[in-house]
Amino acid sequence: MRPKSDVLVSEVGPRDGLQSVKSMMPLEAKKAWISAEAAAGVREIEVGSFVSKRLLPQLADTADLVSHARHIAGLTVAVLVPNLRGAQAAVAAGVHKITLPFSASDTHLARNVRRTPEQMFEEVRGIAQLMRETSCGQRPKLEGGISTAFGCSYEGPIPADKVLRLAEMLMEAGCDEVGLSDTTGYANPAQVKNLVQRVTNAIGKSAFSGLHMHNTRGLGLANVLAGLEIGVTTFDSSLGGLGGCPWAPGATGNVVTEDLVFMLEAMGISTGIDIKKLLEVRKILESAMPTEELFGFVAEVGLPLGFERNE
Amino acid sequence: MRPKSDVLVSEVGPRDGLQSVKSMMPLEAKKAWISAEAAAGVREIEVGSFVSKRLLPQLADTADLVSHARHIAGLTVAVLVPNLRGAQAAVAAGVHKITLPFSASDTHLARNVRRTPEQMFEEVRGIAQLMRETSCGQRPKLEGGISTAFGCSYEGPIPADKVLRLAEMLMEAGCDEVGLSDTTGYANPAQVKNLVQRVTNAIGKSAFSGLHMHNTRGLGLANVLAGLEIGVTTFDSSLGGLGGCPWAPGATGNVVTEDLVFMLEAMGISTGIDIKKLLEVRKILESAMPTEELFGFVAEVGLPLGFERNE
Repeated sequence: MRPKSDVLVSEVGPRDGLQSVKSMMPLEAKKAWISAEAAAGVREIEVGSFVSKRLLPQLADTADLVSHARHIAGLTVAVLVPNLRGAQAAVAAGVHKITLPFSASDTHLARNVRRTPEQMFEEVRGIAQLMRETSCGQRPKLEGGISTAFGCSYEGPIPADKVLRLAEMLMEAGCDEVGLSDTTGYANPAQVKNLVQRVTNAIGKSAFSGLHMHNTRGLGLANVLAGLEIGVTTFDSSLGGLGGCPWAPGATGNVVTEDLVFMLEAMGISTGIDIKKLLEVRKILESAMPTEELFGFVAEVGLPLGFERNE
Repeated sequence: MRPKSDVLVSEVGPRDGLQSVKSMMPLEAKKAWISAEAAAGVREIEVGSFVSKRLLPQLADTADLVSHARHIAGLTVAVLVPNLRGAQAAVAAGVHKITLPFSASDTHLARNVRRTPEQMFEEVRGIAQLMRETSCGQRPKLEGGISTAFGCSYEGPIPADKVLRLAEMLMEAGCDEVGLSDTTGYANPAQVKNLVQRVTNAIGKSAFSGLHMHNTRGLGLANVLAGLEIGVTTFDSSLGGLGGCPWAPGATGNVVTEDLVFMLEAMGISTGIDIKKLLEVRKILESAMPTEELFGFVAEVGLPLGFERNE
């Protein structure tokens, strides 16, 4: 039996991490990575993205990974899709969750998915329609992921009202839930509390899917703490801090899964994850992509003497 | 006029940073560093330590630095001293503040200052006596800095009750204030809140001098945030994240001043520090110690587009 957990740590490395590195990780290594994280207690993994293979050849094997990951008991298999076509592929592959990134910055949206907000809402409505047409047992959860929610490298500050309205419109358009992404690493803890409060007030707490924070300016874990304190219970992170966004200059580095799990477990917040096993999973990345830099403080210096995970 | 500030960022790089690097920073470069940080708005700097020149030759010019820094208007000149002899030198030099490190871990205390707790209390009482004998205008503030307050690399977890009792005993022995140091980077935000609350309840809020956090396991800023939220208003940090403790293995890296100031100012908490000027000060370190690694996320990727400091 899996241990009870207070917080869901959602691993996005196989998608957000791999899309931003030069190395091509072989399919078998990806499978081993996903299996090993699941065995360490990770209960949700974004295994890839159904995007153009030309644009992101690193993620071309997403369907195979979904097929592999679906056989891991208790694991929620998530993918990112940029459009209806990707969502169709995701449903066909049998994912449990689809995240559609919708940038609060029109400029970032244009560069990331080459669409205007109006065109993007067309996609959302098309995907929502697809969800309705999909039989209940096969229907994935549809998350609208608001990227650049805390600021944009092209536009600078993004007004909170714009994010709020976008969250409402995504729910109206048929998303099951909405999350906020700090794509650019612009967020600060006060802003996190304020924006999450306003969004959850607007769409309802149960419709808020969680926070996806980057550690670009070193505030990743402080921002997670801010989210925790106002009741957020799902956080994305990436093993070894792989990740970023190729269309948001300088915006490298998701929150490091190992450091996030360490912080939570040290605080007495159960993640269901065995951090010692989790730290071992890095070896799969190191061996499959020896030229890629991995991040993470706990991996570097080790756990505190006498550290016992919260059971 | 200096801008009003909500939080005091106390720079400890010239002491905690330099004592843990191999490079010898020339006196003139140190003076330039201190002057430049003060010009950027930093209002308290720990300029060195009155310790044996044989043990820490990097800090042998502390008296010269005190003499230099005392002429900077509005700057609180702090030093670390391990014993009465150091305190005598500090008073003679004319410092404004003395920090006496007292480890909550007996093993760390023995290795750091080669004393038992009883012998160390002898020093504290001797220094308190020296303070009483020093005329009012020349009398520095005496801070007891409880090191390894959140855990020790030799002993593991340190009972909160032991820290609490030590804080009370330091006040009884004549300290003006007591602060807590996470020498080893073992702290987590829940522990910070709990321990600071208990210590401030015991010795009084006005006697709590602040937090000295390391970023060893990446939780430095999250721990600062936890402190902020329960009313702590003084935080130590080190430019470029220089620092650590030679007697606490793996415990490298103070909280980075630049990232700390960025977080606070982004949150709308005024530090009185101009972050753009502060970032420029790194050049002094880079040029004087070209072989030393500097840390810091904001320095690496830059400020967010459109970022304006809180004025």
